[in-house]
Amino acid sequence: MRVVVALGGNALLRRGQALTAANQRANVRVAAGALAEIARKHDLIISHGNGPQVGLLALQSAAFKNVEDYPLDVLGAETEGMIGYIIEQELANELPDSDIATLLTQIEVAANDPAFQAPSKPIGPLYTKSEAERLAATHGWAVAPDGSGYRRVVPSPRPRRIFEISVIELLVNKGVIVICAGGGGIPVVVREDGSMIGVEAVVDKDRASALLACELKADAFLMLTDVAAVWDRWGEPGARAIHHAAPGAIRAMSFDPGSMAPKVEAACNFAEAIGGIVGIGALNDAAAILRGEAGTTIAIGAEGISFHGTEPT
Amino acid sequence: MRVVVALGGNALLRRGQALTAANQRANVRVAAGALAEIARKHDLIISHGNGPQVGLLALQSAAFKNVEDYPLDVLGAETEGMIGYIIEQELANELPDSDIATLLTQIEVAANDPAFQAPSKPIGPLYTKSEAERLAATHGWAVAPDGSGYRRVVPSPRPRRIFEISVIELLVNKGVIVICAGGGGIPVVVREDGSMIGVEAVVDKDRASALLACELKADAFLMLTDVAAVWDRWGEPGARAIHHAAPGAIRAMSFDPGSMAPKVEAACNFAEAIGGIVGIGALNDAAAILRGEAGTTIAIGAEGISFHGTEPT
Repeated sequence: MRVVVALGGNALLRRGQALTAANQRANVRVAAGALAEIARKHDLIISHGNGPQVGLLALQSAAFKNVEDYPLDVLGAETEGMIGYIIEQELANELPDSDIATLLTQIEVAANDPAFQAPSKPIGPLYTKSEAERLAATHGWAVAPDGSGYRRVVPSPRPRRIFEISVIELLVNKGVIVICAGGGGIPVVVREDGSMIGVEAVVDKDRASALLACELKADAFLMLTDVAAVWDRWGEPGARAIHHAAPGAIRAMSFDPGSMAPKVEAACNFAEAIGGIVGIGALNDAAAILRGEAGTTIAIGAEGISFHGTEPT
Repeated sequence: MRVVVALGGNALLRRGQALTAANQRANVRVAAGALAEIARKHDLIISHGNGPQVGLLALQSAAFKNVEDYPLDVLGAETEGMIGYIIEQELANELPDSDIATLLTQIEVAANDPAFQAPSKPIGPLYTKSEAERLAATHGWAVAPDGSGYRRVVPSPRPRRIFEISVIELLVNKGVIVICAGGGGIPVVVREDGSMIGVEAVVDKDRASALLACELKADAFLMLTDVAAVWDRWGEPGARAIHHAAPGAIRAMSFDPGSMAPKVEAACNFAEAIGGIVGIGALNDAAAILRGEAGTTIAIGAEGISFHGTEPT
């Protein structure tokens, strides 16, 4: 099987941890164990988020006054190097006989994507309201409420095309484990003369990973996070963890637009386009999710919705 | 022909320029024209330096006080993303029908390399003596004189092995232009249990590129810089630009240990090990150097030393 795994931010950093290199490495070391279990049986392609990291690099760049701030596309490229390196090294320690490649990935977005007029993707740390207002004024950032605080938000245009897809396909066909589309890929627009140029945005990693899984015609696409499953009525009385769902059935439900809704949308798009299985759940359950025993799986062959601990409805 | 090109720092930043993303892009755009000329006729593998860039990222990391400083291996990985991205994008604009891959590259160094006890590789900007002394005291950096000022220096252990070499070989064999071993590769040691871990160092990019050219059995290895050739008695009366040289003959001459000596050593090591041609010279002359018409070429078939504008001695 060809399996695309999108690693959520918690694979790199647990909530509340300081964003140090050592913390990222320690978390990735745990993730590498779960990823290796998949790679021993299947062809594996790994993507990952970069929200906290690209936010940190933007803050570091702004803190050093002698050189003007670096744009988000270049910072995104830096995070692909940083995070890809840590994942590749720790995965190689689990799988010393495997070939692993971390590939810089650029993703085309539309210059007229409405997201450029409405920044929505949170990056960097959580601020208090007054800190956020001060940073917005001093750096020209857009900020928005997120959970218990505020975060910087940037445009998140839709991914249209992965420039390096033929190289990724070539490597996967040769049995190489590929780490790519990090941080949703570096967003690039194609100008009227056909040339490429990076833009100040961050593509959603679940959308980019779904595109990657579609273009690779993957058999399975896993979005691994720190939540064990997709929940119906999350946080409300009677909430239930979804086990299996058909795309049409789960599309009819409503989820938090800031976290689960884009994952469910990406999942359904892939399942409907390619016919593969999508799993959403906890990193440590990766192999069990792939077997349909844990997390939430979405596939066109599923009947309606079933919940963990109950029979299909 | 299979051609490995090592891009010197000036391909990314001219002396005296501010290290902005825009300046790097403008310089790489020019370099991309010269690289594309080679890639249209030959298999091309590109490596590059990262001294100024890794120094900048270290300063940015230190300037943002809320998170502890990032180690040099992770910063090196960030520069592979940053610089590789700009090169890949600008080269793709020159060669829209070519496949290009930027590959994160780790290079093994010996844990007991004497370089760890004697930092020598300059990174980051030029400082006055008093600035350098203050930074050394506040950050625990080693600093050393460099040209008209002082720079931070870090250990520069010898490269022993390129972990991703089989992936690089695979891509080159399939006609993909590969950008790799950026900044000399990320230095990694192998521990007693066989596992890998990054170390705080920066590998010399010419040494790493020579190793890359050797392992790929390249036909030609070009080190492109902002000097038109290797000069005998550079800066002295009667200085002459070397045109062609046999490794034995050029090894007997002496060069600036801070700039040309490591290039000449890397050149001779490759020429003697593989029998390929090495060219050292200006970026804009790349294609002419490859034809033996410009710069300095070193090959085991050459007779002694010949100079530009004169007959062989």
